Amino acid sequence: MDATAIGNGALRSNGAGADTKGKPIKCKAAVAHGPGEALVIEEVEVAPPARMEVRLKVFFTSICHTDLSAWKGENELQRKFPRILGHEAAGVVESVGEGVEDLAPGDHVVPIFTGECGACTYCESSKSNLCKTYRVNPFKSTMVTDGGTRFTMIDRSSGARNPVYHFLNTSTFAEYTVIDSACAVKINPKAPLEKMSLLSCGVSTGVGAAWNTANVSKGSTVAIFGLGAIGLAVAEGARLRGASRIIGVDINPEKFSKGKEMGITDFINSKASGKPVHEVIMEMTDGGVDYSFECTGITDVLREAFVSTHDGWGLTVVLGIHATPRMLPLHPMELFDGRRITGCVFGDFKGKSQLPEIVEKCMLGEININFDGFITQEMPFADINKAFQLLEEGKSLRCLLHV
Amino acid sequence: MDATAIGNGALRSNGAGADTKGKPIKCKAAVAHGPGEALVIEEVEVAPPARMEVRLKVFFTSICHTDLSAWKGENELQRKFPRILGHEAAGVVESVGEGVEDLAPGDHVVPIFTGECGACTYCESSKSNLCKTYRVNPFKSTMVTDGGTRFTMIDRSSGARNPVYHFLNTSTFAEYTVIDSACAVKINPKAPLEKMSLLSCGVSTGVGAAWNTANVSKGSTVAIFGLGAIGLAVAEGARLRGASRIIGVDINPEKFSKGKEMGITDFINSKASGKPVHEVIMEMTDGGVDYSFECTGITDVLREAFVSTHDGWGLTVVLGIHATPRMLPLHPMELFDGRRITGCVFGDFKGKSQLPEIVEKCMLGEININFDGFITQEMPFADINKAFQLLEEGKSLRCLLHV
Repeated sequence: MDATAIGNGALRSNGAGADTKGKPIKCKAAVAHGPGEALVIEEVEVAPPARMEVRLKVFFTSICHTDLSAWKGENELQRKFPRILGHEAAGVVESVGEGVEDLAPGDHVVPIFTGECGACTYCESSKSNLCKTYRVNPFKSTMVTDGGTRFTMIDRSSGARNPVYHFLNTSTFAEYTVIDSACAVKINPKAPLEKMSLLSCGVSTGVGAAWNTANVSKGSTVAIFGLGAIGLAVAEGARLRGASRIIGVDINPEKFSKGKEMGITDFINSKASGKPVHEVIMEMTDGGVDYSFECTGITDVLREAFVSTHDGWGLTVVLGIHATPRMLPLHPMELFDGRRITGCVFGDFKGKSQLPEIVEKCMLGEININFDGFITQEMPFADINKAFQLLEEGKSLRCLLHV
Repeated sequence: MDATAIGNGALRSNGAGADTKGKPIKCKAAVAHGPGEALVIEEVEVAPPARMEVRLKVFFTSICHTDLSAWKGENELQRKFPRILGHEAAGVVESVGEGVEDLAPGDHVVPIFTGECGACTYCESSKSNLCKTYRVNPFKSTMVTDGGTRFTMIDRSSGARNPVYHFLNTSTFAEYTVIDSACAVKINPKAPLEKMSLLSCGVSTGVGAAWNTANVSKGSTVAIFGLGAIGLAVAEGARLRGASRIIGVDINPEKFSKGKEMGITDFINSKASGKPVHEVIMEMTDGGVDYSFECTGITDVLREAFVSTHDGWGLTVVLGIHATPRMLPLHPMELFDGRRITGCVFGDFKGKSQLPEIVEKCMLGEININFDGFITQEMPFADINKAFQLLEEGKSLRCLLHV
């Protein structure tokens, strides 16, 4: 196998730990103590993996808007502190719990926030990637196996052992983490882990939305609302499928140069368009795009995305997190114009079944995902608060943290 | 060909008129003079077909809720009187206008309210049956060719010639009507016209919703909300696809015996269920049906239909006409549970391309649609007001009017 297409990865044998197996590991983690409070790098104790769990040494992690939202505690029901956030990462298996057969110490893995047990009705269906037990759940903060946490902080003064909560099946803002084996995707150890960490969320979600959810076809037209990492990953997916026109919409024209570099062909600054964006798109495309992707979480933008598609066959894929109670701003009769709308979680990829093959194809050069284009900064793990700030200010796509 | 599967039809040569070609025809029509006013059987003059139009002798017509709604003038924008309603029918071509090459006098045809020109972007797309020019349009009341009407009434006292408006590309409540050739489906003349008239709207819409829009698969589970003719046609489509369970929901338990006869396996009286229907369905089906069909036009029922499907892959097909300004009662985040929703016009059939083959298969017995099950009454055309009343009172699926 020629692994030059995306470069070679270093073999990371130091994940596997004959010395640490079965024992707690003391390590550093970035702990969120309260909504919006700066993360604190603290020493935590990471318990050995329980049944069907694995303990990972995290090598790279990055920050996504979902981390930002949970950190701020935007949704009250999600507030659970102290907590270790983070869900986009790559690492190496240190040890596995009882019953884990598909993973072994030393395996290179990408954690996924929406797992795949492989045996439930959902995993057995070709129509869904929502595993019954391990699907994405922003309200979950403990492990499935026993309802406990694997992270503990020891209070320096009292000596009390306090649990630190998990996040999104992953909690990757730590040197070591414990996740369900259903949420650990084993990949080719020759693949460069720093790039593969992007498959953990952003790139898979956007590319998969174009490939799996929308099934963008050669020569078709696409509009992307919101040019963050997800939006650009959609563009990447559409480009690889041979879309003839990829229209990027954002309120921040500073994002257009990056967008151009990532294959977007046309841009609309929705603050300066002078009329509703869908009217601009209708004119540009003679009746609307074939596919639109909503990557903002803003309900009015969702409506614009919907009416920007061509009647008869237009499909809108919703990727944004809509945190307000506002309902879908669509009338039932509008569905009779033949426009469709659908949600998309993790690009409709079944992570454990499908990602390893994507990695192989990237290594062989059969798929040319521009991973480097998404990595706008790199920093040591200790600078995580700075990385949060960059993302919040819209100055970062992905800041890769070296753990 | 063995035409016994659905019986033989009489050859109706009296549609063709060497005497009448190019001349106006005086005949009877049921004219709607105002919202909710009893229809009046009047003498009208039917002009010869203009370019790309055909004039039909109507043999059978029946009434659908869309006629009822237009007759009542439920939507102000649709009020246009005097008007000839009616869109479900079967007849024979009397003469054709200039440029019509695919139809000739004597051809047996089924009119369709959503036409197929065969040459526009929509007709050329495999994803849509919404022809650019001849798609269903409840606001249209004149012909495309010249913006005029082909029906005239002559005022007995003044002698004035007053236009009578068209409806839904069809206007079949008349002995003769003029329609665009794009809205005339030529079928095997051996097929029984009285049954084929049901393909003009109700049966095609319901069966096609199950076959084309939802693509109901063998062994799957289905819930149908609203057991009128469309709902029962959905049941027929689902039964023919081998659905394992077809759950019928209605507030009127009198509809259940007919439903049972038409293949519905389970019934829920939503007025007597004691809890939301979706909860009942979740329990009955271990998590929801694979497909739900909303055939009521009631927005709260639409929501029940949506949440009655299985998360991960459930699909709701909207068939009901939602006349209120109420928006879709769904939250954007609910789309992330993997449930989908889509509208359906005319069962997603491309009428002229696809219906003739359905007719052939029905004649060969390859498809066993229970047409007779839908015809609950037969009457002479003159009793049309009685037929309207029966439909409004929920005592009729289809009352076949002999014109």
